[in-house]
Amino acid sequence: MSAPPARGKLISFEGGEGVGKSTAIAAAVAALLGRGIEVVQVREPGGTPLGESIRSLLLAPEHRGMCAQTELLLMFASRAQLLHERIAPALASGTWVVADRFTDASFAYQGGGRGLDRGVIAELERWAVGRKSDLVLLLDLPIAAGLERARARGGIADRIEVESHAFFERVRDCYRQRAHADPQRWRVIDASQSIALVAAAVTAAVLAVADSR
Amino acid sequence: MSAPPARGKLISFEGGEGVGKSTAIAAAVAALLGRGIEVVQVREPGGTPLGESIRSLLLAPEHRGMCAQTELLLMFASRAQLLHERIAPALASGTWVVADRFTDASFAYQGGGRGLDRGVIAELERWAVGRKSDLVLLLDLPIAAGLERARARGGIADRIEVESHAFFERVRDCYRQRAHADPQRWRVIDASQSIALVAAAVTAAVLAVADSR
Repeated sequence: MSAPPARGKLISFEGGEGVGKSTAIAAAVAALLGRGIEVVQVREPGGTPLGESIRSLLLAPEHRGMCAQTELLLMFASRAQLLHERIAPALASGTWVVADRFTDASFAYQGGGRGLDRGVIAELERWAVGRKSDLVLLLDLPIAAGLERARARGGIADRIEVESHAFFERVRDCYRQRAHADPQRWRVIDASQSIALVAAAVTAAVLAVADSR
Repeated sequence: MSAPPARGKLISFEGGEGVGKSTAIAAAVAALLGRGIEVVQVREPGGTPLGESIRSLLLAPEHRGMCAQTELLLMFASRAQLLHERIAPALASGTWVVADRFTDASFAYQGGGRGLDRGVIAELERWAVGRKSDLVLLLDLPIAAGLERARARGGIADRIEVESHAFFERVRDCYRQRAHADPQRWRVIDASQSIALVAAAVTAAVLAVADSR
């Protein structure tokens, strides 16, 4: 990926099911717009026409026989297209990108959750994407609380949402370990707080980056 | 992929557009059945319900903006699922598999054709698939002749069929180089011969493997 040098920043939001990513993302976008920064929002998997088709394959309950390798490869196929088609051009033009999940999600879900080789994930990140996000906001919440919120939200559970409690514990552990290992790039936000407090924490973290330009 | 030890053999057919793979595959299957060997046929990309959906994404003309990395990742996503769901179980039970393209196609199309890093392709082959085919039959034909046959066959050209002549020359060169470098595993068949002569060459190559068991 021979992208031009980035002038914008890429901020990603990570966390399990029901942690409140949408509300947090709205707070981040509002804070950046308030500083006069142009922002685009993307989500993973998806974010491009091709990526949204890949997303449908990934989440469809009828594909429960999908092997873990295929899941990881589809995630990176969607992500490479998203970088190529939307993220890289935006960053090159000075627009910031706020992403609902990025490469760190593959370390957590396919690495931690499914037990795939993290060296392979790192190699795919290097080769297919070529960059990490500049700032990761991890919305951290005990699994039971997140699943309860997700259930209250309703709708049909997708192929990943029906995983076991143990799976989501491994995902959360992996996220927390990665945040602990790289505090420069990660901020952990306690998602059990009120929406107002979560929004305030997100705003502070995002504006710290915006104001340090 | 912790597959049980294979008792069957995997024979793949490779070559560009219009080289006559379908006819050659039919000859191979007939020869194996004639020796009392159980055979399943698969094609790439595709061969599983999920893989056929991935195939549709790969070939759809509207996805002409697909980046090369995404193309390679989708090819391997389909292939990993095909191995997991159909090839590995068949081989483990002693059934032989005849494949219309396998991992060597990614070296030729995404490596030779698109110029992607062959080290990455080899790493994906090792990690997502874990094996090569036991025998590769390369149907070799000058590009112009193959394209003329493909055109005569009619139908709407897919996203890959509309590539340039130079692209297909690179694909063919890559196939021939790989065959030259590993004559133990590859047989090159002159696909400009009559159908009867191609079928005879395919039959001889396949039976040589069957009779050496």
